[in-house]
Amino acid sequence: MTLPQVVAFSGNRDTIRVVGHRGARGIMPENSLVGFDFALSIGVNLLEFDVVMTMDHVPVITHNNELHGPSFRGKDGKFLSGTCPRVSNLQMADLVQYDIGRLDGQTEYGKRFPDQAQLDGIRVPRLGELLQLVSQPKYNQSHLMLELKSDPHQDAESRHRDAFVSAVISEVRNAGLADRTLLHSFDWSLLAECRRQQPDMPVSFLTQICESANEAGEDSSNTITPDFDAPGTSIPDEVIRAGGSLWCPYYKDITDTDLARARALGLCVAVWTVNAPEDIDRMIDLHVDAIITDYPGRVQRRLSDRGYKWQD
Amino acid sequence: MTLPQVVAFSGNRDTIRVVGHRGARGIMPENSLVGFDFALSIGVNLLEFDVVMTMDHVPVITHNNELHGPSFRGKDGKFLSGTCPRVSNLQMADLVQYDIGRLDGQTEYGKRFPDQAQLDGIRVPRLGELLQLVSQPKYNQSHLMLELKSDPHQDAESRHRDAFVSAVISEVRNAGLADRTLLHSFDWSLLAECRRQQPDMPVSFLTQICESANEAGEDSSNTITPDFDAPGTSIPDEVIRAGGSLWCPYYKDITDTDLARARALGLCVAVWTVNAPEDIDRMIDLHVDAIITDYPGRVQRRLSDRGYKWQD
Ligand SMILES: [Mg+2]
Ligand SMILES: [Mg+2]
Repeated sequence: MTLPQVVAFSGNRDTIRVVGHRGARGIMPENSLVGFDFALSIGVNLLEFDVVMTMDHVPVITHNNELHGPSFRGKDGKFLSGTCPRVSNLQMADLVQYDIGRLDGQTEYGKRFPDQAQLDGIRVPRLGELLQLVSQPKYNQSHLMLELKSDPHQDAESRHRDAFVSAVISEVRNAGLADRTLLHSFDWSLLAECRRQQPDMPVSFLTQICESANEAGEDSSNTITPDFDAPGTSIPDEVIRAGGSLWCPYYKDITDTDLARARALGLCVAVWTVNAPEDIDRMIDLHVDAIITDYPGRVQRRLSDRGYKWQD
Repeated sequence: MTLPQVVAFSGNRDTIRVVGHRGARGIMPENSLVGFDFALSIGVNLLEFDVVMTMDHVPVITHNNELHGPSFRGKDGKFLSGTCPRVSNLQMADLVQYDIGRLDGQTEYGKRFPDQAQLDGIRVPRLGELLQLVSQPKYNQSHLMLELKSDPHQDAESRHRDAFVSAVISEVRNAGLADRTLLHSFDWSLLAECRRQQPDMPVSFLTQICESANEAGEDSSNTITPDFDAPGTSIPDEVIRAGGSLWCPYYKDITDTDLARARALGLCVAVWTVNAPEDIDRMIDLHVDAIITDYPGRVQRRLSDRGYKWQD
């Protein structure tokens, strides 16, 4: 029997799912409660977001291990520059001093999201705050794609990694949301640890083969996967071997052959991060299960125009 | 002393205001409560919207006198086509049968807003519902640019027009929001009636000289203005003569000379509807008081990048 979280991310003949990437990064501050609330309010019930852990072991929602200069402002109101503090070296009380409500338009990163609303007084949320938000009855159809970001500075100690996985899983379980959450990562060894600690929660394996000009260097976490270049390797088969329920390839990587193989193996396929109209159309043509996007309204428009639903 | 509503729409040395056009038409269904709530939630406290009246004399928020095919769906889920019913021929109970949550991508109008979220179960709001929304304490900084749409089919009877103005003004007054509302129209005779009925509420005069390919034919209401083509005519002077506090020119019309004249006369100048980045930049260069836009996040980004505020 397919787990309910996996069903929630699976398309069907007339349904392709929409997953809000970091909430709705194109429209609202990324990985913010206001952004998640926006996505939910437009009927985008599937949320992708990134989790790391503070020095005092609080799982928080932010993309990078180091504070991200183009979207973090200090108390002086200025965007961070130079070497930024690591989340793992900050107490939660220090982390919430930063404001993540705006983007620095002088940076390449900032230029990528020209429509993002600019707010003040927006803080890095605890994982627990998002869990509380989606626990409201009006959002009882929502499901979470919780990305665990491994920390190359800490992971030498497997003790740290195990504690991270354990902290995240226990928050989700305690909130009663284990059956609405997928654990998702580029770090397949972290997902193996998830499987070990909580075998009944589905895991979702991220992959990327093609270079992405935009995403390159943005992320400071680990990518740990099998060697996909070995002759005869099929990524969907590797995902199954690793116990995965979802495969999340970079949208430029996916082929008809791999998609057919994933289908044959019963994998749900969600592609990331699809923003340009022509790429959205190509993913609809391929008929993937789910499209992860910074512009959920745009994907809704393309789906609606072509007669698809994204909700049951 | 300048009225508080006019102050709310006036810029200053480091402030240019952002007004959400029909809420935030580029991102959310136009003239919908969810759209207004979105704009308010991102700190866009100035809302522009359009009011017409049903057969049973309920002021409602929608742009056209005839239901707008590209954004109205009937009970069968299909967008309206052909000749659409007039709001003035519908009872409120009939009007709320239509769903305004989506856009028809097959139409030219639909193609103009490719990022608009697609929702179901969204109804034409009563004016009273918006007044209730902005009466919440969290939105106590919000101000309304209430556009009265005259109805060429009805206005032959001045009785109808007077009843429309009276119904709108009494709803606003009864909600205690008269000091947070501007009355705004292309129909200067309607604004004269507003001045007659409620001389202490400021009025805002819309003008358009250049043709707009996009907006042409979209609107079915009356434009009634003095003759701007007469030699020596200055539009800002005409606005003052008509008792206006705001002048709202189409953004392609505005010149340095007219802006300087408006300033000298003490008029607040808000330009509509500015969506393209280069046009937004030009309006910032001119340093208008306020920019009316379908993409409030985009205008916030341009202002933020250039060191401007939009709120006090
Ligand atoms: Mg992620
Ligand atoms: Mg209007």
